[in-house]
Amino acid sequence: MMRSPQSLRNGGVEPHPDPHFHSTVSLRKLRRLNALIFVFRLAAFSFSLAAAVFMLTNIRGSSPPHWYDFDAFRYVVAANGIVAVYSLFEMGASVWEISQGLTLFPEALQVWFDFAHDQVFAYLLLSADSAGTALARALKGMNTCAANGPFCVQSDISIALGFAGFLFLGLSSLLSGFRVVCFMINGSRFHL
Amino acid sequence: MMRSPQSLRNGGVEPHPDPHFHSTVSLRKLRRLNALIFVFRLAAFSFSLAAAVFMLTNIRGSSPPHWYDFDAFRYVVAANGIVAVYSLFEMGASVWEISQGLTLFPEALQVWFDFAHDQVFAYLLLSADSAGTALARALKGMNTCAANGPFCVQSDISIALGFAGFLFLGLSSLLSGFRVVCFMINGSRFHL
Repeated sequence: MMRSPQSLRNGGVEPHPDPHFHSTVSLRKLRRLNALIFVFRLAAFSFSLAAAVFMLTNIRGSSPPHWYDFDAFRYVVAANGIVAVYSLFEMGASVWEISQGLTLFPEALQVWFDFAHDQVFAYLLLSADSAGTALARALKGMNTCAANGPFCVQSDISIALGFAGFLFLGLSSLLSGFRVVCFMINGSRFHL
Repeated sequence: MMRSPQSLRNGGVEPHPDPHFHSTVSLRKLRRLNALIFVFRLAAFSFSLAAAVFMLTNIRGSSPPHWYDFDAFRYVVAANGIVAVYSLFEMGASVWEISQGLTLFPEALQVWFDFAHDQVFAYLLLSADSAGTALARALKGMNTCAANGPFCVQSDISIALGFAGFLFLGLSSLLSGFRVVCFMINGSRFHL
């Protein structure tokens, strides 16, 4: 509060008692941060949805191999699906916050919810994509890829999209971690 | 400073100007936190070292399979080795801090160094262990495990030890994250 120009103009009296008062500089910075978080969430959503769809459609008629024959590929679909749903929800929460100026949940819950889920789902997605990579490499050593080239190529694309999703989820996690620290220092998501 | 009993006993004068002054309660809490971090580091070191050694010794004479024939198992050895070396270094830094009362690096650098490396190496180790799990499952579907049961069992044990190492590294990461937040709020690792 001490840094806002209004409190200085008041000539040394107590800072504005209204807790909903925020300087325009803080508001502008907060809006920029929220826009950046929204962009990262959109990218994470797009990549993880694309990864899940690419793996789900990795079936050519009724002949094997199918993606659901392999544990690691099922894990890739599940993890990317979960991250896509979560990112969609967080995009909704982000739009709500930008348009209404209020967080969806109470502020303390919201910042911790975002950060904790970002972390857990980032670990989940990295683990699934690593498992998928290891399986894809093992399949290349077997006859599967020689007989079914397109199956292996489509798996590789799906896993690469999943890693891109992980990258943007990790960036979101950094920003939501920053929000947690700001909240703990200032007791508000304003004042960056 | 306001909460320490000495400043209250001083009858409203300025808090103690010495920056190296800390109440005994803070010191006791800090010592307990440091001891907990040391225990987690020791556990992470033991498990990741054991995982690396189990995988490295997974050779039976000169006949294949060897662990180094598989990318994912090489990744498991490398990640567990890196985490073991890092944990050993951090144990040294922790002992130094407990015995000398000073951090090895300047305080701001130390708390960020610990947290950043804990995070990165936790992701690395989880990724390696997931890749190892996927490969181990793929090998079970092939003839490798039927012909070489002990090779597969020893790989499984190594990967399981790696996951235990990841668990303790994750716990260290939580505590070092807590230290970063305390440092940012108070400008000191004292005052918990």
